[in-house]
Amino acid sequence: MTVMKATLGRLPEYLRVLTSEDMKDFETVSATTIAKALNLGEVQVRKDLNAVSGKGKPKTGYVKQELIERLKSVLGVNERTFAVIVGAGKLGKALLDYGKFVKYGVEIVAGFDIDPALKTDDMHGKHIYHISEFADYVKRNGIEIGVITVPKSAAQSVCDLMVASGIKAIWNFAPQAVTVPDSVILQQENLALSLAFLKLQLKNV
Amino acid sequence: MTVMKATLGRLPEYLRVLTSEDMKDFETVSATTIAKALNLGEVQVRKDLNAVSGKGKPKTGYVKQELIERLKSVLGVNERTFAVIVGAGKLGKALLDYGKFVKYGVEIVAGFDIDPALKTDDMHGKHIYHISEFADYVKRNGIEIGVITVPKSAAQSVCDLMVASGIKAIWNFAPQAVTVPDSVILQQENLALSLAFLKLQLKNV
Repeated sequence: MTVMKATLGRLPEYLRVLTSEDMKDFETVSATTIAKALNLGEVQVRKDLNAVSGKGKPKTGYVKQELIERLKSVLGVNERTFAVIVGAGKLGKALLDYGKFVKYGVEIVAGFDIDPALKTDDMHGKHIYHISEFADYVKRNGIEIGVITVPKSAAQSVCDLMVASGIKAIWNFAPQAVTVPDSVILQQENLALSLAFLKLQLKNV
Repeated sequence: MTVMKATLGRLPEYLRVLTSEDMKDFETVSATTIAKALNLGEVQVRKDLNAVSGKGKPKTGYVKQELIERLKSVLGVNERTFAVIVGAGKLGKALLDYGKFVKYGVEIVAGFDIDPALKTDDMHGKHIYHISEFADYVKRNGIEIGVITVPKSAAQSVCDLMVASGIKAIWNFAPQAVTVPDSVILQQENLALSLAFLKLQLKNV
């Protein structure tokens, strides 16, 4: 199953509508109904639902409960995935604090830093540990995702530590490309690029 | 001209190669040469350069200096665009501190917050002002881009303030969709979605 990022972003909305009071008495639900409730294009909704749950039946659409379970499964709402952050500077702390990840079944449970002065349990119960405890913590707690928010110069060594510790997917915010083995999933975040793209649109209006 | 985001991300690299010592004596340069220097696919580089500068000449490729000027112009390296942030929490401060925006010709010059206690000039010379000074500051300094890093509940009112103050493009980090008039460019950032997408890939390996 391939779900595009834009589609994935709308799934929590579909789930919200389907589990709302308004739909309590529905046994089946059509893409048209969902599109109307969210003020989205019908073609869009039809495509999205098709990607996660196949085609609905003509006229009646989807069995509501089945669609709900399918959405929950794709979003992994019931199976929590755990992540940790390395680099407890401003951005790292901001991400530790960011509540919205839970909605997609991901929880960032701890931070790590090389600076012992940052050790704290102040972040809504999320501890910041010394980096020397990283490998142990990851193994003990079944952490699958690592987030890199260290300066450029430390990015590759942190990445290597993550891979060696058994992290399976890495989200890199450092403004420095890192390399991983084929078995590890890597996502490079580039905030500067987003801003540059906004500027580009501004200049081409 | 339409430049895709992925292309835009490679332009600083092309610019770096073209202005490097290695290419000092080149008058013309081919997509092949650039592809080799960056270890990128040739088709990719050809497409990218085509998007920003049209087709190169058969055999010789591009006039180097022309291509450099074109890349600088698209990236807006010589015309600085100014941005401000509203919401000087952890994320806002992290963005104020993030140096890499300048590479794309964008400078975040100040932050604003409703909390007077956050007023400071501590952020590498970037002041955090009280929100009541926003409209004035934007007009006085020709600010074109506004970045929203406030909590969900304040997002729309901050967005409205930006629009009323003459901001032309808005980058919204608040986990809340905002609406703008057609004349204003809006980019919704969704960090949770990026993490969710990483998880989705992890689960489908």
